[in-house]
Amino acid sequence: MSTTTALLIADLAGVVVFAASGASAALAKHLDLFGVVFVGFVAALGGGVIRDLAIDRVPPLAFGDWRYSLTAAVTSVVVFFFHPQLARIRRTVLVLDAAGLGLFTATGTLLALKAGVPGVGACILGMLTGIGGGLARDLLTGEIPVVLRQEVYALAALLGAIVVVVGLKVGVPATPLMVGAAVLIFAVRIVALRQRWSVPTPKPSPPIG
Amino acid sequence: MSTTTALLIADLAGVVVFAASGASAALAKHLDLFGVVFVGFVAALGGGVIRDLAIDRVPPLAFGDWRYSLTAAVTSVVVFFFHPQLARIRRTVLVLDAAGLGLFTATGTLLALKAGVPGVGACILGMLTGIGGGLARDLLTGEIPVVLRQEVYALAALLGAIVVVVGLKVGVPATPLMVGAAVLIFAVRIVALRQRWSVPTPKPSPPIG
Amino acid sequence: MSTTTALLIADLAGVVVFAASGASAALAKHLDLFGVVFVGFVAALGGGVIRDLAIDRVPPLAFGDWRYSLTAAVTSVVVFFFHPQLARIRRTVLVLDAAGLGLFTATGTLLALKAGVPGVGACILGMLTGIGGGLARDLLTGEIPVVLRQEVYALAALLGAIVVVVGLKVGVPATPLMVGAAVLIFAVRIVALRQRWSVPTPKPSPPIG
Repeated sequence: MSTTTALLIADLAGVVVFAASGASAALAKHLDLFGVVFVGFVAALGGGVIRDLAIDRVPPLAFGDWRYSLTAAVTSVVVFFFHPQLARIRRTVLVLDAAGLGLFTATGTLLALKAGVPGVGACILGMLTGIGGGLARDLLTGEIPVVLRQEVYALAALLGAIVVVVGLKVGVPATPLMVGAAVLIFAVRIVALRQRWSVPTPKPSPPIG
Repeated sequence: MSTTTALLIADLAGVVVFAASGASAALAKHLDLFGVVFVGFVAALGGGVIRDLAIDRVPPLAFGDWRYSLTAAVTSVVVFFFHPQLARIRRTVLVLDAAGLGLFTATGTLLALKAGVPGVGACILGMLTGIGGGLARDLLTGEIPVVLRQEVYALAALLGAIVVVVGLKVGVPATPLMVGAAVLIFAVRIVALRQRWSVPTPKPSPPIG
Repeated sequence: MSTTTALLIADLAGVVVFAASGASAALAKHLDLFGVVFVGFVAALGGGVIRDLAIDRVPPLAFGDWRYSLTAAVTSVVVFFFHPQLARIRRTVLVLDAAGLGLFTATGTLLALKAGVPGVGACILGMLTGIGGGLARDLLTGEIPVVLRQEVYALAALLGAIVVVVGLKVGVPATPLMVGAAVLIFAVRIVALRQRWSVPTPKPSPPIG
């Protein structure tokens, strides 16, 4: 199996995980089959579309490669018909979601750098690639995005994106760097889940209108 | 009247219908005159903006041709001042909306294909052109998008988009194909409304958190 | 101090003000530190991202110039830790917000014109540059955008954008024109706040479904 094939398979695995998270959220809101597939599609591919619009990749990957859209759609349909069984594997889904976050953030950061985005911007865009699908999923289902409210999620992604940018600058070869950054994001996210780490929330205070 | 003129008039008719749907939704939320015009504008032109960003048409049609923005604005103002009368023609609005859906989807699919988007992506982008304005309208007015919850709407658009892509591939000339696809979408949507067809919704089940 | 430096400082002042408004809104929704920084970032830079996507500036300023993202992030962190004190300067924030609106709208309109967007579209894009961040802030925090519901805000921006487009067409030099338009927007907004001007809202009427 070539490196390209390995990357594609890893990427599609990320699509499966994020599509499943989107489809589950849509089911919880009693959307119909189309709504479930649509939210699954957006959760899986929305982060990449944001990145591709910003770096002017035409058309965005979600519309340019049918393997991505098909994977997202099939996953969502499967979730629609088999969701009671899925409820029992919630822990597995959280682990897969952490893996998807690591992978999407690492590749998103690299693509942004290659497109000429400066370091700071590439970190932000890489993080958005990882968290953007979940953001869009929550907006579509009428929720304040969970990533803005809860736990160490986006910060794990941001940390990994910084590692990619700094690593490339000091000459680390791309392949081990990407793997390392993705693993780092995954590990931070998993440890945060187990230890119930969270980002500080505001002190109670008089309302500020 | 030339074909181009006919197309422009048909396109602007779609803008009128979608702007009216957006303005009506904004009125129901008690937005002010500006809010009504803004939501009308987004409902009428938002789907096309999504498509144009994805195919890198600069600037998007909504900003590049004043006839589109003016039509959307004037329609919204009219709805604002005459909405009690409009309440009586709700059935007419649903029919016009189905016509707009057919038209926008057919042209959106064709434009995506012409911009080099592959078949599957062009179907998705064409559908998004048709349903995107309504999605944005519902997000702006704080609703879970109705297209994700209800009836055969997006699926009618997707079906028409597939007809456009397949038709062009097997050599059907563009003009009759576009008309045929738009009519097909319109017909499916109208029949679905009359027969109360709907997309399956999830079976009741234990919550899947 | 050169004109360019003056412009940059003015622009970053706008970023500070809008980031503070976004961070305050996020605090009111009890988002965590990351959520506060993210909403602050989007409120400060979201309008510019919309404009840059529409005129195909790659990458958008928010990702291409670290001074903008850093300013937005630092401001949001400061708001997070010192917000009780900020509650006492709410009036100041409204005045600064009006200044940011004027500045962002004027520069957004000019950039759109320079990118070849026709006059009417440039007015709309300029206004969107000014109000877009606030729109995105409200969507992320689960609110119907305040700009669609309340007072003379977007209309002040639209008025200033029209002045920029018409002024350039009749040959007014860019620098005084930009200053004049920004001051005009600021003044209209401030007077509207003091006089409690508002845009008409719909007459009560039978629901229009």
